[in-house]
Amino acid sequence: MLAVGVVGGTGYTGAELLRLLVMHPEVSLKYVTSRSESGNRVADLFPNLRGFTDICFTEPELETLSECDVVFFATPNGTAMKMVPALVENRVRVIDLAADFRLKDASVWKQWYGMDHACIDVLAEAVYGLPEINREAIKTARVVANPGCYPTATTLGFLPLIEQGLIDDQRLIVDAKSGVSGAGRGASVATLQAESAENFKPYAVDGHRHLPEIRQTLSDVVSHEVGLTFVPHLLPMIRGIETSLYARLKTDEAVDLHQLYVDRYSAEPFVDILDQGVMPETRSVKGANTCRISIFRPQQCDTVVVSSVIDNLVKGAAGQAVQNMNIMFEFDEALGLKQVALLP
Amino acid sequence: MLAVGVVGGTGYTGAELLRLLVMHPEVSLKYVTSRSESGNRVADLFPNLRGFTDICFTEPELETLSECDVVFFATPNGTAMKMVPALVENRVRVIDLAADFRLKDASVWKQWYGMDHACIDVLAEAVYGLPEINREAIKTARVVANPGCYPTATTLGFLPLIEQGLIDDQRLIVDAKSGVSGAGRGASVATLQAESAENFKPYAVDGHRHLPEIRQTLSDVVSHEVGLTFVPHLLPMIRGIETSLYARLKTDEAVDLHQLYVDRYSAEPFVDILDQGVMPETRSVKGANTCRISIFRPQQCDTVVVSSVIDNLVKGAAGQAVQNMNIMFEFDEALGLKQVALLP
Amino acid sequence: MLAVGVVGGTGYTGAELLRLLVMHPEVSLKYVTSRSESGNRVADLFPNLRGFTDICFTEPELETLSECDVVFFATPNGTAMKMVPALVENRVRVIDLAADFRLKDASVWKQWYGMDHACIDVLAEAVYGLPEINREAIKTARVVANPGCYPTATTLGFLPLIEQGLIDDQRLIVDAKSGVSGAGRGASVATLQAESAENFKPYAVDGHRHLPEIRQTLSDVVSHEVGLTFVPHLLPMIRGIETSLYARLKTDEAVDLHQLYVDRYSAEPFVDILDQGVMPETRSVKGANTCRISIFRPQQCDTVVVSSVIDNLVKGAAGQAVQNMNIMFEFDEALGLKQVALLP
Amino acid sequence: MLAVGVVGGTGYTGAELLRLLVMHPEVSLKYVTSRSESGNRVADLFPNLRGFTDICFTEPELETLSECDVVFFATPNGTAMKMVPALVENRVRVIDLAADFRLKDASVWKQWYGMDHACIDVLAEAVYGLPEINREAIKTARVVANPGCYPTATTLGFLPLIEQGLIDDQRLIVDAKSGVSGAGRGASVATLQAESAENFKPYAVDGHRHLPEIRQTLSDVVSHEVGLTFVPHLLPMIRGIETSLYARLKTDEAVDLHQLYVDRYSAEPFVDILDQGVMPETRSVKGANTCRISIFRPQQCDTVVVSSVIDNLVKGAAGQAVQNMNIMFEFDEALGLKQVALLP
Repeated sequence: MLAVGVVGGTGYTGAELLRLLVMHPEVSLKYVTSRSESGNRVADLFPNLRGFTDICFTEPELETLSECDVVFFATPNGTAMKMVPALVENRVRVIDLAADFRLKDASVWKQWYGMDHACIDVLAEAVYGLPEINREAIKTARVVANPGCYPTATTLGFLPLIEQGLIDDQRLIVDAKSGVSGAGRGASVATLQAESAENFKPYAVDGHRHLPEIRQTLSDVVSHEVGLTFVPHLLPMIRGIETSLYARLKTDEAVDLHQLYVDRYSAEPFVDILDQGVMPETRSVKGANTCRISIFRPQQCDTVVVSSVIDNLVKGAAGQAVQNMNIMFEFDEALGLKQVALLP
Repeated sequence: MLAVGVVGGTGYTGAELLRLLVMHPEVSLKYVTSRSESGNRVADLFPNLRGFTDICFTEPELETLSECDVVFFATPNGTAMKMVPALVENRVRVIDLAADFRLKDASVWKQWYGMDHACIDVLAEAVYGLPEINREAIKTARVVANPGCYPTATTLGFLPLIEQGLIDDQRLIVDAKSGVSGAGRGASVATLQAESAENFKPYAVDGHRHLPEIRQTLSDVVSHEVGLTFVPHLLPMIRGIETSLYARLKTDEAVDLHQLYVDRYSAEPFVDILDQGVMPETRSVKGANTCRISIFRPQQCDTVVVSSVIDNLVKGAAGQAVQNMNIMFEFDEALGLKQVALLP
Repeated sequence: MLAVGVVGGTGYTGAELLRLLVMHPEVSLKYVTSRSESGNRVADLFPNLRGFTDICFTEPELETLSECDVVFFATPNGTAMKMVPALVENRVRVIDLAADFRLKDASVWKQWYGMDHACIDVLAEAVYGLPEINREAIKTARVVANPGCYPTATTLGFLPLIEQGLIDDQRLIVDAKSGVSGAGRGASVATLQAESAENFKPYAVDGHRHLPEIRQTLSDVVSHEVGLTFVPHLLPMIRGIETSLYARLKTDEAVDLHQLYVDRYSAEPFVDILDQGVMPETRSVKGANTCRISIFRPQQCDTVVVSSVIDNLVKGAAGQAVQNMNIMFEFDEALGLKQVALLP
Repeated sequence: MLAVGVVGGTGYTGAELLRLLVMHPEVSLKYVTSRSESGNRVADLFPNLRGFTDICFTEPELETLSECDVVFFATPNGTAMKMVPALVENRVRVIDLAADFRLKDASVWKQWYGMDHACIDVLAEAVYGLPEINREAIKTARVVANPGCYPTATTLGFLPLIEQGLIDDQRLIVDAKSGVSGAGRGASVATLQAESAENFKPYAVDGHRHLPEIRQTLSDVVSHEVGLTFVPHLLPMIRGIETSLYARLKTDEAVDLHQLYVDRYSAEPFVDILDQGVMPETRSVKGANTCRISIFRPQQCDTVVVSSVIDNLVKGAAGQAVQNMNIMFEFDEALGLKQVALLP
């Protein structure tokens, strides 16, 4: 059994992580930390966990966390980077669900997150935890940077086209939509139900923090800088991300795009290419770790359209983190993640 | 492994049953029938099942269904009673999620469902499948009548008070609210999202079919006719039932109502009495087979208030059906049902 | 034209008041105050008002507000009572949408709101602004206490029965449900969409602040203390309140309850008794100042059921406030309030 | 007073038209027809209209409809074209909210709607009723083809850029999202609340009927064929359309795109260009006839992003129809349409 700690267990990614971890057959949940809830039972905050764990929140302390084999950070950006070096020193492996280790260039990090990076050496060795790209590196990583929700859906959607050089990668367009759980569990006016329900809007058009992350990943794949317009929107629902991706096909040849996608992901346990003509819907992955993708070429023009859906809290956060843990500790990659999406 | 058939797998209770059955470690899903979808893959209709089953819908036929150890009916009312006698004859055990075997008195059945009952002898032996009342009888039952959703929440809520004779049972009040999945997956105007979302209303105040079912169960417990007002309401959400129950306490003595409930359900795997002062919420059971209950005595007056919540598709339908199957076949009662509710 | 001020225009009742006031043909909106938004354009905060007003928020100051004929308070409880005496002195009439002047007994006010009352003499003269009961007194009132949302729906629902002495008024039961806009526009976790959507729960069962208000009004009508159990619930939608009211009929005689309600409200512009057998739904009053009511006697038992619906922000707050203003200044009572509910 | 008839008053565009017409100071509503509801009161079907009209549905008949000055068709596609020639002959002016007169080329109409066009001569004279393009022609039109909802939002969004030739019009991208009321009030499984709520998906990617309509309008503006990819999505809410439009800027010069939009629409009563950096949201136009638009150039790249929002039932259907009526009969263009959007 793996001794597991969760730092910052009061947000939605934390809650979702706990949902998955309490059912994972190889996990022993040792610590769930929260400064504000310390001493309170986790199941009092998240009543869905009643009967599954009696654990109480504790203060985040190096000494106790060092008893763990792996520690997940489900904390605000900028928190993990302060604790991770000491944990790594104590031979604890780390999976960070925040953004602290996602951007390789510390100056880009500072530009988008407004802080100096606190541990550039650890940043250098951290592995970007998208298994469909980095599975081998994840196996031995000491620190895994769990990808953002939009970057997961976008990258998996563009990957086969980008890898094969089939599209103009200087004018990629990402029209992304996310449920409100992506905005987190902090008190705020903007995501009150009376504000965000029965409403739809774009936001952060001038620059969202996931833009440099997506650009970094896609540019790495093609070994040059890609050009990307990324427009996120807020959906009036709780869970789910859909990204509609647009690009210009460079080739005139007939390419079987559907087959390309099927082949690329045939060995992937959590990427599902739908049958031709079938459109993905977010509810088909609600609570599940799957990314479902369709590819279209409307009116046989040269604009290709890809639609990918994930549950932002699962494949976009907690589920992918558990997938990474499974890879790091050589469990079956799907252990504890074989859940049927809740539909309806 | 149990050979299992599902008749009528295209509605919401059918879909939910499939979600639970494909993950059940002792179940081999043999047949899922649907006249309208025969020949089509189940996972094409319910994409959350992609990767979990390759089964196709088939026609409902006695011969194939008779290969099963147990057959679930998730059909409209009046369908099961036509097929069950032959199945029972062929030593197939039956769990009916519709209403065909719920009302013991065939004339009451006719009054509320508008049809003559087709197999009064089987009706006589059918066991009402509320494990918290009938566990022993369920074990050996050939036909189990799976309770209705409202009756499950209401009965579990009133049971300890009724059993102890603590309340005036001639003027029980049930103010019940259900998510729209309770109305089924049939095309209809009334539960279009544009009609039922952002809306709330009572319905069937003059008499809902679950009224005689609740009355029968509670009257059986106290061995006389109870008096009951039952007002259901339609909630603008997908899953979940809450019933607020009101009754007059007959005793002046101080009774520890909370302890009464805790004791009554202490051995029950799927009834959870919340801590004093904590109110239940439907999302705490979304996707789970649990009924959570709180009991209050506002301002220490003699009106007692009980609030109980279930997921109408799980403890109110498919989950309870699987719980009954587990009891009938002597599996751990919670096998395949240990799921953490999806929150948020 | 009436010179009108609004103190506290940044919450939902304030926003709704502005929606109604900018279209009111006899209103000239002079001041909308907010300490936090002072200097900003109202239409920047509430973009639905773009094109309807260019006014900016200002600081709440006695001097400027005293230029108004009437000032509305859409402030948190406890704010109005500090400013109202000086305004009244300056011959400004006041309509308070908060609770400061609703409870006649200052000790009861302190018990439920946790503050000493700041102006007991003004409290003594304030008129409870439910036109269906107090129209005459409202005409000449200097201070109108605009009723709470639950009390409006509940009182209008019980009124004909209570006035005629037809029910046992010692065990009235109010099962009330409100949309989340009733919880206000303040940042909070509990009404984040990810918390309150797809969820339903009772709250404040041990005692809600609207309980003493309802009790006071109904007790005044019958001239003795009524007994009441009041259980509010939070609905996963934005606007709307439904109250399901239960009481025991005292009489054995056949009373035409429907006709009783039709007659009682025949002259009321904003109370609509539905046809027999038709159930009210909240969307039929969304954005409108109407209260729609139905009355039932299920199975001809002695428990009578009344269902009433209002838009909590209109008849339950801002609309009723404008109705009161119309009465106070001898306009047509429906002026500026003849709006068709938005359906769907 | 204008004598007005509505053919097909039982759908959502019909209901919305009635909401606007009963409040319009120059309209006398003579006939609302429906074969299925004939004889029933309109306010029984749409309870929000109680107190505003006593009219009953009647059979659609040429004789009675010919008493009207103007007849609106809120019927399924293919119905209006059968009745319109006779009405026009009888000097009745017609506004068709369906698609019968939108596509100028009858063969294109047949291709997308699967029917031969029934009155090609009337089609030839029909005016496409987008006032921002065709105001003069609308004034004298006998038949107005009221634009589709997606085409309204898309055309108004692209118009200033297209007119000025600033973008590459061969690869326009329209990522459109609509609330479920756009799917109509017919019974269907796909828009049951239990199906479409808490869900998001693209649909009709291979070709939506609004594609040729958008292409026709934009091509007319530039006098050559434009190239367009149009991907509609279904939003889990009732009202509202947002279109996110993407195009490549052709010019390297600095153009003040915001000013371009402000200038283009400065005289338009129902197009509102938001301040720079402010993003539109659908709730800011809920129930209102306004289209709000923002324009962005993220990271100063050559991809321009426009976001436009409308209420699909108002500016996208019934409101625009009333606006057209006002133009045709020389009323103030905003008469009966000055409504503040319902927020929250």
